[in-house]
Amino acid sequence: MIVDCAHYADGKRQHKGPIEIGEAAGRCNGAGGFAWVGLKEPSKDELEQVGKAFGLHDLALEDAMNAHQRPKLEDYDGSLFIVLRTARYDDAKEEVEFGEIHLFVGSDYVIAVRHGEASELGPARKRLEEHEGLLDAGPAAVVWAIVDKVVDDYAPVVAGIDNDLEEVEDEIFRQSSDSTQRIYFLKREVIEFHRAVSPLLAPLESLQHGAQPGVGDELRRYFRDVHDHARRIDEQVSSQRELLTSILEANLALLGVQQNEVIRGISAWAAIIAVPTFIASIWGMNFEYMPELDERWAYPVALVLMLVAVVSLYRFFKRIDWL
Amino acid sequence: MIVDCAHYADGKRQHKGPIEIGEAAGRCNGAGGFAWVGLKEPSKDELEQVGKAFGLHDLALEDAMNAHQRPKLEDYDGSLFIVLRTARYDDAKEEVEFGEIHLFVGSDYVIAVRHGEASELGPARKRLEEHEGLLDAGPAAVVWAIVDKVVDDYAPVVAGIDNDLEEVEDEIFRQSSDSTQRIYFLKREVIEFHRAVSPLLAPLESLQHGAQPGVGDELRRYFRDVHDHARRIDEQVSSQRELLTSILEANLALLGVQQNEVIRGISAWAAIIAVPTFIASIWGMNFEYMPELDERWAYPVALVLMLVAVVSLYRFFKRIDWL
Amino acid sequence: MIVDCAHYADGKRQHKGPIEIGEAAGRCNGAGGFAWVGLKEPSKDELEQVGKAFGLHDLALEDAMNAHQRPKLEDYDGSLFIVLRTARYDDAKEEVEFGEIHLFVGSDYVIAVRHGEASELGPARKRLEEHEGLLDAGPAAVVWAIVDKVVDDYAPVVAGIDNDLEEVEDEIFRQSSDSTQRIYFLKREVIEFHRAVSPLLAPLESLQHGAQPGVGDELRRYFRDVHDHARRIDEQVSSQRELLTSILEANLALLGVQQNEVIRGISAWAAIIAVPTFIASIWGMNFEYMPELDERWAYPVALVLMLVAVVSLYRFFKRIDWL
Amino acid sequence: MIVDCAHYADGKRQHKGPIEIGEAAGRCNGAGGFAWVGLKEPSKDELEQVGKAFGLHDLALEDAMNAHQRPKLEDYDGSLFIVLRTARYDDAKEEVEFGEIHLFVGSDYVIAVRHGEASELGPARKRLEEHEGLLDAGPAAVVWAIVDKVVDDYAPVVAGIDNDLEEVEDEIFRQSSDSTQRIYFLKREVIEFHRAVSPLLAPLESLQHGAQPGVGDELRRYFRDVHDHARRIDEQVSSQRELLTSILEANLALLGVQQNEVIRGISAWAAIIAVPTFIASIWGMNFEYMPELDERWAYPVALVLMLVAVVSLYRFFKRIDWL
Amino acid sequence: MIVDCAHYADGKRQHKGPIEIGEAAGRCNGAGGFAWVGLKEPSKDELEQVGKAFGLHDLALEDAMNAHQRPKLEDYDGSLFIVLRTARYDDAKEEVEFGEIHLFVGSDYVIAVRHGEASELGPARKRLEEHEGLLDAGPAAVVWAIVDKVVDDYAPVVAGIDNDLEEVEDEIFRQSSDSTQRIYFLKREVIEFHRAVSPLLAPLESLQHGAQPGVGDELRRYFRDVHDHARRIDEQVSSQRELLTSILEANLALLGVQQNEVIRGISAWAAIIAVPTFIASIWGMNFEYMPELDERWAYPVALVLMLVAVVSLYRFFKRIDWL
Repeated sequence: MIVDCAHYADGKRQHKGPIEIGEAAGRCNGAGGFAWVGLKEPSKDELEQVGKAFGLHDLALEDAMNAHQRPKLEDYDGSLFIVLRTARYDDAKEEVEFGEIHLFVGSDYVIAVRHGEASELGPARKRLEEHEGLLDAGPAAVVWAIVDKVVDDYAPVVAGIDNDLEEVEDEIFRQSSDSTQRIYFLKREVIEFHRAVSPLLAPLESLQHGAQPGVGDELRRYFRDVHDHARRIDEQVSSQRELLTSILEANLALLGVQQNEVIRGISAWAAIIAVPTFIASIWGMNFEYMPELDERWAYPVALVLMLVAVVSLYRFFKRIDWL
Repeated sequence: MIVDCAHYADGKRQHKGPIEIGEAAGRCNGAGGFAWVGLKEPSKDELEQVGKAFGLHDLALEDAMNAHQRPKLEDYDGSLFIVLRTARYDDAKEEVEFGEIHLFVGSDYVIAVRHGEASELGPARKRLEEHEGLLDAGPAAVVWAIVDKVVDDYAPVVAGIDNDLEEVEDEIFRQSSDSTQRIYFLKREVIEFHRAVSPLLAPLESLQHGAQPGVGDELRRYFRDVHDHARRIDEQVSSQRELLTSILEANLALLGVQQNEVIRGISAWAAIIAVPTFIASIWGMNFEYMPELDERWAYPVALVLMLVAVVSLYRFFKRIDWL
Repeated sequence: MIVDCAHYADGKRQHKGPIEIGEAAGRCNGAGGFAWVGLKEPSKDELEQVGKAFGLHDLALEDAMNAHQRPKLEDYDGSLFIVLRTARYDDAKEEVEFGEIHLFVGSDYVIAVRHGEASELGPARKRLEEHEGLLDAGPAAVVWAIVDKVVDDYAPVVAGIDNDLEEVEDEIFRQSSDSTQRIYFLKREVIEFHRAVSPLLAPLESLQHGAQPGVGDELRRYFRDVHDHARRIDEQVSSQRELLTSILEANLALLGVQQNEVIRGISAWAAIIAVPTFIASIWGMNFEYMPELDERWAYPVALVLMLVAVVSLYRFFKRIDWL
Repeated sequence: MIVDCAHYADGKRQHKGPIEIGEAAGRCNGAGGFAWVGLKEPSKDELEQVGKAFGLHDLALEDAMNAHQRPKLEDYDGSLFIVLRTARYDDAKEEVEFGEIHLFVGSDYVIAVRHGEASELGPARKRLEEHEGLLDAGPAAVVWAIVDKVVDDYAPVVAGIDNDLEEVEDEIFRQSSDSTQRIYFLKREVIEFHRAVSPLLAPLESLQHGAQPGVGDELRRYFRDVHDHARRIDEQVSSQRELLTSILEANLALLGVQQNEVIRGISAWAAIIAVPTFIASIWGMNFEYMPELDERWAYPVALVLMLVAVVSLYRFFKRIDWL
Repeated sequence: MIVDCAHYADGKRQHKGPIEIGEAAGRCNGAGGFAWVGLKEPSKDELEQVGKAFGLHDLALEDAMNAHQRPKLEDYDGSLFIVLRTARYDDAKEEVEFGEIHLFVGSDYVIAVRHGEASELGPARKRLEEHEGLLDAGPAAVVWAIVDKVVDDYAPVVAGIDNDLEEVEDEIFRQSSDSTQRIYFLKREVIEFHRAVSPLLAPLESLQHGAQPGVGDELRRYFRDVHDHARRIDEQVSSQRELLTSILEANLALLGVQQNEVIRGISAWAAIIAVPTFIASIWGMNFEYMPELDERWAYPVALVLMLVAVVSLYRFFKRIDWL
């Protein structure tokens, strides 16, 4: 699906609404400026049409078709192919959803291909269009706007995971329920998230240090800012990973504590039943000469004795905290 | 076994069907172009014959004889010796099978020696023969085609392991059976797979950066593509390794949970039997004056009392979730 | 809130008490020297006023507004933006409180923005004002004084955590109570503290090696001193992290030891009750010819027998250390 | 003990049998070529005699005296001092035995000092003497032959450990016996083995890259081969280390599984005894009106009832797999 | 306390017994050579006196006052400040005691400040005075002698820890007592020891490579020797750390094994009591027609039956190794 296609020159959009891809490519050749095409999960035909119009490299096009790339920045003789992994915290399912954005960047075009729901690029385009100064910097500014959006969208994911983490801590230390499964799947998500963020750092560093042409001094500062955010995210994710490992271990210890408590409680109750049973068994013996058997008071006394045994044991176990 | 032996010049195969090794070597000397020999688990004689015909280095030939090399790229005065480890997921046994491919690459020959079933090279040869442009690049193109095939064949292995991983997660969290052994052997496979993929990254990077002569700009882009796939595989394998470690720990915690449950259940049943036994023991005492013993209703009442005790305890333990 | 704003020239403060920000900026332009402005959790207006007066960069200003930055040193065409994370050990809560200090450093100004209670900068200013020689070195000396204060303030935090660690060791090895939760939250704090200290090392190293202009030889030695302190802190934090991991594991082992002891003790008591119960059940049998049943001495002897059994078992279990 | 001492020139040994050390040193000075002296656990006197004859450095001699060096390559103004750690798998004790070889290498001598049984150097000498071409390369060829022998001798050690590892896996997963101790000592050996192999990689790399004079192109290829073998060994050792860690964890989980089984089995048997005991206790009550007590069929029926209870419970527990 | 203060020139001590600090400083200025001052836990006055006499840097002096520095080598315009951490194994307490040595090194003085008991420097001074050749090399030789002494003194500490480690292994695998606490504190010591040794490697490497002036070729070889020893120590400490982690895990597994044994033993004894109790309960029933009750032989037979049950069960459990 083609979301938007526009021609920018002299620092602003040259028309309202989207135009045809062919027209965009043509305008750039003629009138200068650059085209910015936004696609969402495009069909093979759409991709090929765009590829032909702007002369994209086959290998990159092939990569853009399927959505399981690792974040990277590749240079094709002056044109760039950038892969970003997007992330979105789904509050309802308490899960992280991953997507991808592929960027083809030339001197007079930016083509953004989005897979998945995360990080809609509409707002990034709007922000840039309203901020004329930046558009002067050409396609590099668009790259910055998109990367900035993607990295900014990581923050709520980290916050969501932090929240889950705190819930899990609560569950565990209040021993309300078994959280092993939740911890495990949280860890699984954090590992995957780490795989989305971490390979992004090297390309961002190379953009910040001006390794790519067309990135001016001012823009490099903006990329440094994004790089810095990405590193903060990456450090937070690392901390979360380490915390989750510690939680799993703490969980194990708490299970041991809990088991000790259960065993103590059970044993206390066992003793509370075993002692009066033993008492009863004494007067169940069939000796001829058991003088107390003939006494009227003996039976009630025996019952009372049992009761006293039960109550004393109960109190005793209560005091040593086994019950 | 000699699988195929062909002479390529001017970007295409010069004949149908295989030719003799001696002839292939001779043609290259005379008419230009290069020979591509494919061997599968060759006998010592076959290897020596090929070695003599193309003048291969002794140390490399010795390495090619036995099939337990680590992935590497070695330079012998302009000729290269490359070792690749192949992998194949055996669906029936749910196991990963490893093999090896050894490549001797000179300016006018490529000799590929395959050990094990994984990564048949027929398709790679066919693809290259049908894609004339690439064959112009000479032996380096053949190297690319083979490495690309090997790395592409890693993907189903990763998928197979991912699938096993999900099955194991299911088994564990539904507590259907003990999966410790399966997790362990899965981890063992992942460790070995990592050893196959990881040492490949450095040689691929050197090919991508043009450290070897005879690798043109276009081909370097193709190697970059392969390198990128290999890195993705490597990152996935690392994640799997970490996940398997976490699963082992989660498994331990779940065993603790399970044990707590078993102990509670058992204790509940113990109580359910112990209480009526105690009741019976009371009226088993031999006191003279136990007035209720003489009552007609006493025995049925006692039985009912026991029943009530049993039912109440059962309900109680059901309610606190011990049963 | 503006804490203090002063103009320094010729190595000393040019006036008593704070002056207006505009005046400070003006004086620097006219009479040389530099301004040092101290802000605490400033409002957006205050920040913008300062930003305008000294011409600070937008991106840095934006960062200074919100207090969740990672420690860093950024260069904006000769002016620096430095983020420090401060820490304070709250004795009452036995918790570490984190804050932040953001520094804008130009050739004729230093603006310090503090978030959180930790590391008040008053003492650093006083120390520098009393130590005229250093003020000659200009803004870099102020940076040193502030960084030195922040790093010095880490020491009591490390000491506080060390103290907690020893308390936890005591608790665990005297098995007085379950410390899992405390260990976990201690580890959480140590991880966060590590995130505050560790990213600071690289900027400090670059200051020590004179990568920034305006840092003279003498001052570089002072920065080396701070760098060294920060590294010591960082190594201590790493040790604490590793110790906490070991404590969690030791805790697990001790729980196992404890459980073994509980099970043994319980079993001993079970035996002490079960044996006399069994003895009683023998004479509870209804055989006709049980000659001892008719003896006068039999019942007392039976009771004594039970007592002997109980006492012997008790002594036995005491001896093998199960009780 | 002096094992052998010979003078080599023009690519071959100049005499049969060993000669005197003094003579060997003299011949080299006079006639060119180089001396190769092989010592095994030499006395202090022997070492000093050799040291004087060839002018070895004091520090190196001191090191060679005691046999607990780390693998290294040290340069003393053109002469080299190399320490190698040898390893041998003792099949009888299933243990790895470590030894050391110290090499003094000058332009006209190689002195090899061996400690421990592993890696006898006789075969290396024989191989080199029979392979004339290599001896032309002088002392460097001898170094290669010795290092190659030492590294080749690592392979059976790795195989032996692999074998132990598989036996341990078998023991654990068949739960035949407790293997904790064996796993631990296996890990201890692997850690020590790693310390023998890993520091060797850097010196081998420097030899491969020709950092030492007197190592020609051909010989560098041979050193590359050795380096490659050593890296493969090192990677295998790393895998073994990781596997042993996983085995310890799997072992822990299996102990948990086993304990759950034991507890279930025990509980089942407890139930099987407790139920008929309870049944018996019912008819042990002394109520006056228990009509069944007077029936002739009652006792046999009671016994049958107990039997039925026992058999049903047994079957039930068999079915739910507790027995 | 000033331990010794001497003036060295022309490769030997110029006088017997210590001289005044002022005199030593004066002599060096006048007559050449260098002064070597040894202090032990000096008072502030003593340090300041020395500082003034030799013109030491304030920052270094401040560091030398308090004894919690990390090992380091700092350059102050040609003069060096070196911090070493010393270690001593206290056999009585089985603990490692740490101390510190601070060195101020100029072209004509070495001032050594020792904190703590470990690594007395008297022997190092004596050794150097008796070894004239080395003293010619000036202050650098003194640095070598002191560092060599400190590193040599690490060896008995490593040996002491190794010994403890073996004792712990013994305790654990003979299950004689709970060693968790001992393992933990051993690990704590190893971690601290690692912090003493590891930061020393970088300065030693820089001394070995001649990064500091005044270190001649011969002396560099001596520093290489020390560096090598320090690295061996460091590798041993790393191994010990890893072994201690493995021991903690093995300990956990052994606790599990032990618990399984305890539970089995207890259950066996429970069965041995429960079965005869059940037998007795059968004949405790009050049925009218229990023919065996009237037989003379019945009671002895019942007792024998119980005995047989007990003995058979005992033998059975012995055979399956539960007792």
